[in-house]
Amino acid sequence: MAQISPDVDLLPSEIDSFIIDVRESRPRGLARVLSMVENGHPSSSMILHSLYNPDRQVKTIGVTGPPGAGKSTLVNLLIDYWRKLNRKVGVIAVDPSSPFSGGALLGDRVRMQTHASDPGVFIRSMGSRGHLGGLSGATRDALEVLTSASYDPVLVETVGVGQAEVEVASIADITLLVLVPGLGDEVQTMKAGIMEIADVIVLNKADRPGIEQLETAVNASLEFVDDRTVRPRVIRCSAQTGEGIDNLTSAVDSLLSSEVVGQDNAKRRTTLILNGIIREKGSDLAKKIISEKYGSINGAIDSVLSGETTPYMIGEMFTGFLEGIQEKDNGSKQD
Amino acid sequence: MAQISPDVDLLPSEIDSFIIDVRESRPRGLARVLSMVENGHPSSSMILHSLYNPDRQVKTIGVTGPPGAGKSTLVNLLIDYWRKLNRKVGVIAVDPSSPFSGGALLGDRVRMQTHASDPGVFIRSMGSRGHLGGLSGATRDALEVLTSASYDPVLVETVGVGQAEVEVASIADITLLVLVPGLGDEVQTMKAGIMEIADVIVLNKADRPGIEQLETAVNASLEFVDDRTVRPRVIRCSAQTGEGIDNLTSAVDSLLSSEVVGQDNAKRRTTLILNGIIREKGSDLAKKIISEKYGSINGAIDSVLSGETTPYMIGEMFTGFLEGIQEKDNGSKQD
Repeated sequence: MAQISPDVDLLPSEIDSFIIDVRESRPRGLARVLSMVENGHPSSSMILHSLYNPDRQVKTIGVTGPPGAGKSTLVNLLIDYWRKLNRKVGVIAVDPSSPFSGGALLGDRVRMQTHASDPGVFIRSMGSRGHLGGLSGATRDALEVLTSASYDPVLVETVGVGQAEVEVASIADITLLVLVPGLGDEVQTMKAGIMEIADVIVLNKADRPGIEQLETAVNASLEFVDDRTVRPRVIRCSAQTGEGIDNLTSAVDSLLSSEVVGQDNAKRRTTLILNGIIREKGSDLAKKIISEKYGSINGAIDSVLSGETTPYMIGEMFTGFLEGIQEKDNGSKQD
Repeated sequence: MAQISPDVDLLPSEIDSFIIDVRESRPRGLARVLSMVENGHPSSSMILHSLYNPDRQVKTIGVTGPPGAGKSTLVNLLIDYWRKLNRKVGVIAVDPSSPFSGGALLGDRVRMQTHASDPGVFIRSMGSRGHLGGLSGATRDALEVLTSASYDPVLVETVGVGQAEVEVASIADITLLVLVPGLGDEVQTMKAGIMEIADVIVLNKADRPGIEQLETAVNASLEFVDDRTVRPRVIRCSAQTGEGIDNLTSAVDSLLSSEVVGQDNAKRRTTLILNGIIREKGSDLAKKIISEKYGSINGAIDSVLSGETTPYMIGEMFTGFLEGIQEKDNGSKQD
């Protein structure tokens, strides 16, 4: 394959060829498209535009939860389950962006390597470098690429514990929150936010002491979540004993094929992607506008340091910016 | 005091009066300005513009670290120390944005109440609601307000563990990272990011087993941080035994008065604030531009759902947007 220059638009024929690579799930082409998406290649928008289908099936699953909750073990069990049904599974393993993410990172990734030689499993590790929208932007776009290939479902597993990781997991069509007994008082101080996005709450390591209290606390937290059409299912699991794994797979499968989820999904996903693009392209545009006036962002900073203006006054440039343009546009038409 | 309408610009005389309230540290006026900043009141930019001084002294201190590290106990010890020197101390206590933030939240806040009746300590809890830039935007602007009052230093304490909390703490002029032995392998998987922003790494609960390993691991991690002018100090502490507290206060005091830190600080802070404003105002502008074309953001979403466009194509509107304006501007001047 030819080299791709990072800043140069691809030819339309090259874009078409990558789109075919994705649609036919050719691993090398797919990997290159994911790299372009991750690095914010200028042609990645055109590729994503061609691939985007708001009405595609519900097929992406985010898995989040604190370190030590056993997310990777569960993900591996889920992969095994779908592979036995001969479904091709995609996995995006999101690198920890949290400095405090703990534990079994290396072990998890090594464990996932048991699937690495299986051509029916496509595993991609994802960092936050390059993409304008950071980790969640890169993951969001990568999910759209992988769902355009023949992978179904596509899992996105985060290893961190912070808001960023929850955001990443909630980009998926459905979200599993994995909790375990004895990891502190996290449920008590748990914000409604995570309860609102979780479709399934997995109480893992259910053979451990404290599982009753955990379930009681989770159910109590769910009392406060009243603006959901579907209450999240709470499922006890133990990868050790095998308890509850069947319940988990059938709960996930029924969500994937749920009409209620499917109806909402096109709008939810489109809104999420558009909001991300608003943030990313908006920043880009604001930088250009400031650079236009001050020569560069550094020029603007120098103006502040020399006491001519403040960042807050620079921000005020944008108040009325569009009105200014419209006035110019309509200059001759004004009465 | 009169009611402030959330969407209506204040009169210049009202703005001036609030600026005086802040400069003279009148608690009620100060609290109202902080509310305006947090809620994104349209006049908050003008207030922040008037208050902003890039060359102000180094005086804000972020405190971050995993739950259970003893951050609040340390913050309380630091407040005691400065109060004995008759310095007025500001504290911004940032609400957990992480759903997994654990532990002693209520206890911490209750403990902080020991300072609540002291007029020399101003405590403000900060949520992420309202402010366009979220938690870090609100905290960033609130710090500029508090430093314009007579509080020196101003502490910002986060209770969460995620990237968001690290970002919030790193908004401060100097940042303390608090770690303790036995909280898992967090140091091993610690990203360079936190090491790059921490000015002091506090190894707390130094009377506990595992402190040697923790210190070794931290020092090993610091080996990889080579692009810093000043290597962060690593200080062992124990609030129990009092060990190391003197070292901590003198390290923090020397950073607050350090010429090296002071020289960099105006530029660092201005850059940070400007980047935040770029994100916030950029999103705002992008929304307006999209709404201009599609009637509203919902109109754009409907266009995607009906198959007319995709979010990625909508994003492409912004490529060349400014060039289009400039061409119109220069229409008659082109040769």
